[in-house]
Amino acid sequence: MEGGIPRAVAEELDAADPLAAFRKRFVITDPELVYLDGNSLGRLPAATSDLLREVVEKGWGGGLVRSWQEWIDWGARLGDRLAAHVLGARPGEVVISDSTSVNLYKLAGAALDAARGRNTVLMDAEDFPTNRYVLQGLADQRGLRLRRLPSDLDGGLDLDVLRSALDRDVALVVLSLVSYRSGALLDMAKVNELARAAGARVLWDLSHAAGAVPVDLAAAGAELAVGCTYKYLNGGPGSPAFLYVRSDLHAVLRQPVWGWYGQREQFRMGPDYDPVPGIERFLVSTPPLLSLAAIDPALALVEEAGVDRIRTKGLLLGRLADDLAAAWLTPLGFRSASPGTPEQRGSHVSLHHPDAWRICQTLAGEAKVVCDYRVPDRLRIGLSPLYTRFTDVWDALARLREVTAGRTYASRPADLARVT
Amino acid sequence: MEGGIPRAVAEELDAADPLAAFRKRFVITDPELVYLDGNSLGRLPAATSDLLREVVEKGWGGGLVRSWQEWIDWGARLGDRLAAHVLGARPGEVVISDSTSVNLYKLAGAALDAARGRNTVLMDAEDFPTNRYVLQGLADQRGLRLRRLPSDLDGGLDLDVLRSALDRDVALVVLSLVSYRSGALLDMAKVNELARAAGARVLWDLSHAAGAVPVDLAAAGAELAVGCTYKYLNGGPGSPAFLYVRSDLHAVLRQPVWGWYGQREQFRMGPDYDPVPGIERFLVSTPPLLSLAAIDPALALVEEAGVDRIRTKGLLLGRLADDLAAAWLTPLGFRSASPGTPEQRGSHVSLHHPDAWRICQTLAGEAKVVCDYRVPDRLRIGLSPLYTRFTDVWDALARLREVTAGRTYASRPADLARVT
Repeated sequence: MEGGIPRAVAEELDAADPLAAFRKRFVITDPELVYLDGNSLGRLPAATSDLLREVVEKGWGGGLVRSWQEWIDWGARLGDRLAAHVLGARPGEVVISDSTSVNLYKLAGAALDAARGRNTVLMDAEDFPTNRYVLQGLADQRGLRLRRLPSDLDGGLDLDVLRSALDRDVALVVLSLVSYRSGALLDMAKVNELARAAGARVLWDLSHAAGAVPVDLAAAGAELAVGCTYKYLNGGPGSPAFLYVRSDLHAVLRQPVWGWYGQREQFRMGPDYDPVPGIERFLVSTPPLLSLAAIDPALALVEEAGVDRIRTKGLLLGRLADDLAAAWLTPLGFRSASPGTPEQRGSHVSLHHPDAWRICQTLAGEAKVVCDYRVPDRLRIGLSPLYTRFTDVWDALARLREVTAGRTYASRPADLARVT
Repeated sequence: MEGGIPRAVAEELDAADPLAAFRKRFVITDPELVYLDGNSLGRLPAATSDLLREVVEKGWGGGLVRSWQEWIDWGARLGDRLAAHVLGARPGEVVISDSTSVNLYKLAGAALDAARGRNTVLMDAEDFPTNRYVLQGLADQRGLRLRRLPSDLDGGLDLDVLRSALDRDVALVVLSLVSYRSGALLDMAKVNELARAAGARVLWDLSHAAGAVPVDLAAAGAELAVGCTYKYLNGGPGSPAFLYVRSDLHAVLRQPVWGWYGQREQFRMGPDYDPVPGIERFLVSTPPLLSLAAIDPALALVEEAGVDRIRTKGLLLGRLADDLAAAWLTPLGFRSASPGTPEQRGSHVSLHHPDAWRICQTLAGEAKVVCDYRVPDRLRIGLSPLYTRFTDVWDALARLREVTAGRTYASRPADLARVT
């Protein structure tokens, strides 16, 4: 079964893992299941259920409307914690609000409306669909030019392509720091520098990076970012997203959805929109409090572990996955769909195989390995370091090899996988 | 203590109340507290906590990303239930999504973008702040004219004012069916008819009506509506909102936030935005699932009770409140801030008093009556029929009389109340 790398190697890595104890801080209902889809939906932290019960029963049930006195700034408080421990931003520059798509719309809209005279938006032609659609909508409504930069599906955007596209008409560049498909990791500081030199702003989508890869928005000169909290941050299904606006831009930008949570002296309910000077001007309205509350205990785990240590383990998990794939899977027709080394990626890795969909479905059945599928032929393997063991990676790839080699996967017609 | 209406009258009304048993279906942690703010945040249904635990522990903890197969259409399923039992709409015309403000932005934007050649938006100058701000933002971005119709703060919009404002330039009229402040209830069918005759569309905000007042969107000829689920529908703090678009308009309207939840064959992730033909084209992205899930058990209670019976009780509660206020409060300097009969209102009633803020704060303390305050001098009393007893109204107004007559309310400086 081993063929190349014995399981003992993975066992030793687990024994030496300084983050190993964090796995017990998550709910694991089925110890046999290997879950390699934390890049879609992170696992449930063990503390979340009790916290939610308290918010529901004491906060809502007992405190009723009075609890809003406490709840009203949770989006800002969680934002400050994200800023300090995950994003490398300053207090008052990050807030939790709405969904990633709506936040992208708000910040891209704000940047475009402030960029009078420049009429081009650049995006990665292979970026996550909702990002592309949101930008298409904004460009359509405002009569702007949307340029889709050609990008290597398995390798990410070439910065020379970006450089040559950055002409004087470019108002905004929208990019994902980590590609949702290949996992390719961009050089944030370099991109920001190129754009700044060309007089354009950059809006980053950090969905597949936050909590997996060290991000230092301040040091990298980033101006705008959004991202989701339900992947490596384990905030729960559809937990609300974050947005970041560098503080010097608060006075310059005005987002298009003018809601009362952005209003100065909100409860005076004045006649005209008069947004606060701070990050809350990018809020719209009442947040979904239960989903918001679940971010708190999840974020506490990331804070305790530290993103640097999470990344260190992520790189080792990635290297093990690479080595096993080369030894076991390449001979079976798999081909890498990601940059070649873990340092060039976020915390997931993708593989091409003509039968990827059926293999993925079969793995999730008796083989008890959950990873995910992306059209047309990619398996995506998420290595969320807080709860993924080295032996999980070894076991999963062994089962993947077995299923593929034995061709025991189902031959039913292709359907489509769901959810990013 | 009685002075006018003996408590026995309220006790008899409770004894005869066909909905009396529903109170037991809610969590009541403090039996002495009279909660008259269900128009801001409805009480916690007793079934919600267990349902949430199941969604969190089994769905998220156990099912992990696989649970999205089940979750993905919850917004549409709940929308269909709302359509059938609360809104008088057809299947496929209502969906849960985002916040009320974001939904208002999407539908107002869609209507305005489809109304080429007409450049005026009409709104009630006294409408809820976020509605006014959202429309200001849309008008500003699109260079449209926003006309604020003068409206009686205590009585609502006069339809003659609307009629005379409906000229050939009006694209859209945005109105709340029930005023958040006075509770004034508009005639939806009449307004729709006036607007249709003038070639304009109407977008309704049903936040203070849904679950309290019978709404029949189809019969009233309504085209567009939004509303919240955390007031009389008891969906929990910040639970996501609903939106309604009449089916014949799905092909005509395109909302401005082009997200992947509106995309045809969402998981094919095609290059260009190509929205589905149905109501899901008005969705943007992944919903906050925990907050969404809490709507289910809450809606079940409204379905079981029936909005007609809820309204019947609401009218009786309103009449009792009116009678008690006339007998006890008018002599103490209170003055009605609402239309004079319950039939002209939603399920809340407002009163002016120069010391409203301090009285409201004192009531919430030792007197254990939670109602709310609106600038500058209004007490707002919410009568959510599913869990409010006639004796609650009697007790609350007796305590209100006592506090005001004895001037036992605090004299600390005015602050501002929070949350609608």
